[in-house]
Amino acid sequence: MNIGIVGLGLIGGSMAWDLRSLGFHVLGVSTREQTCEKAIAKGIVDDASVNLSLMATADVIFICTPIAAIAPTVEQLVPYLSSTAILTDVGSVKAPVVKAISELWPNFVGGHPMAGSTQSGIGAAMRDLFVGRPYVITPTETTPTLAVDRVEEIARSLGSHIYRCHPADHDRAVAWISHLPVMVSASLIAACMSEVDPDIVSLAQHLASSGFRDTSRVGGGNPELGVMMAKYNRQELLRSLHSYRQHLDRFINDIEQESWEVLQQNLEQNQQNRKNFKSC
Amino acid sequence: MNIGIVGLGLIGGSMAWDLRSLGFHVLGVSTREQTCEKAIAKGIVDDASVNLSLMATADVIFICTPIAAIAPTVEQLVPYLSSTAILTDVGSVKAPVVKAISELWPNFVGGHPMAGSTQSGIGAAMRDLFVGRPYVITPTETTPTLAVDRVEEIARSLGSHIYRCHPADHDRAVAWISHLPVMVSASLIAACMSEVDPDIVSLAQHLASSGFRDTSRVGGGNPELGVMMAKYNRQELLRSLHSYRQHLDRFINDIEQESWEVLQQNLEQNQQNRKNFKSC
Repeated sequence: MNIGIVGLGLIGGSMAWDLRSLGFHVLGVSTREQTCEKAIAKGIVDDASVNLSLMATADVIFICTPIAAIAPTVEQLVPYLSSTAILTDVGSVKAPVVKAISELWPNFVGGHPMAGSTQSGIGAAMRDLFVGRPYVITPTETTPTLAVDRVEEIARSLGSHIYRCHPADHDRAVAWISHLPVMVSASLIAACMSEVDPDIVSLAQHLASSGFRDTSRVGGGNPELGVMMAKYNRQELLRSLHSYRQHLDRFINDIEQESWEVLQQNLEQNQQNRKNFKSC
Repeated sequence: MNIGIVGLGLIGGSMAWDLRSLGFHVLGVSTREQTCEKAIAKGIVDDASVNLSLMATADVIFICTPIAAIAPTVEQLVPYLSSTAILTDVGSVKAPVVKAISELWPNFVGGHPMAGSTQSGIGAAMRDLFVGRPYVITPTETTPTLAVDRVEEIARSLGSHIYRCHPADHDRAVAWISHLPVMVSASLIAACMSEVDPDIVSLAQHLASSGFRDTSRVGGGNPELGVMMAKYNRQELLRSLHSYRQHLDRFINDIEQESWEVLQQNLEQNQQNRKNFKSC
């Protein structure tokens, strides 16, 4: 089977590398000639090109571009595709992508391999990036079953844990555990920096320890990624933010009212509930 | 010099152990006979007792009990103290402690060694717990200089980085970087668990990764510690929480208004500002 990878960054490059070593014939496309050369030189792909016509012989094609580039890329790609070609993507928001791409190419199934690194680009590509990580596949009522099964089979071969759900359910779930934490964490950094006494700011910066480091980590991360998730998952993110504000207000109220027993119970409940989240 | 340690838990036990190996004669008091026996058996102290009268020969005494027990302990301790004895404590909130204890024993200086572990008790005591960690000393206008210098000298011998500031400044700084993060993080767990669709909750629990893990960590921590910091640092915590809510509202507003450039700028500013916090 020929696999096409469009976008040879961290995700696309790592996926190409694993699939090639599993015995697939892997063809890669990048907008940069230099990336194509690197991918071939490192043995990440069998062949690479800046021209989408390379995808003409691909049976399953993974679109691994940034999310804003997915639809424009598929529009350019469609004229080259064989009639049975299966398309999938790796975008971190699914409902708008699935809607847009299904209209361009019905033999499409959305996907989201939940792996990453703080680094990016073909130079950051690594083997086994997806092992033990969730890979969400998001078919709709109209997605061809063969496409779903084929993409799932390939994702499973990467060592991922497969989850199947509706695009909207994916977006709601990741709003809670991925996109909301970014805004919660970002607000923490912004609030700390609003302290008007520079001596207190300096003292706080020196005393900050693992608690601040961990709570502020994702809010101090890649700004482009933060804007992207807010833009594409805006409705679900806002829903989770409004709920978050209500819970924040309850904690504030308990402290204002000195309701220490209620606060104790809520923190105990939290301690228990957190254990049910994977990776915690 | 004789050092007294009242409260042989993680902090008191670790401090006793280091000070004894630095050549101080270390006397420990615990409310539990078993803890005294363990401390002697492990070589953490030279002598230990459940009776505060053991502190009669101590030159500098560290009160290492939970914060609520500091004042009652000092009240019981005072009758045994030599007239030149210097008292200090290790509580994580300083203004109320310094006020209460200075009235009981004027030769007192507040302190806060900012080290810890998820474990507690004499069994968790370890060598070099304070090396490279901040140790805040909080004298007031009326604190005897000799007491400040003596406690600072001992804290420095533990390998800590010393900071001197007013108790109120300490409490304001730790509200930002230690107490506010707990409530921000706790609200995240509570909000996620309020999702009404159990399938989404289950999916979110399975997909949760390092972002959720780190942002939720301190909010899912020890409930007693959370209540304690809220109770003793209530005013400063509320001040930081109200500021936090304003910044959260700005992020919500930017997303509602689709002000992507403003959001991008704020996240870029965050990314830069976070680098100025130690341990980040």
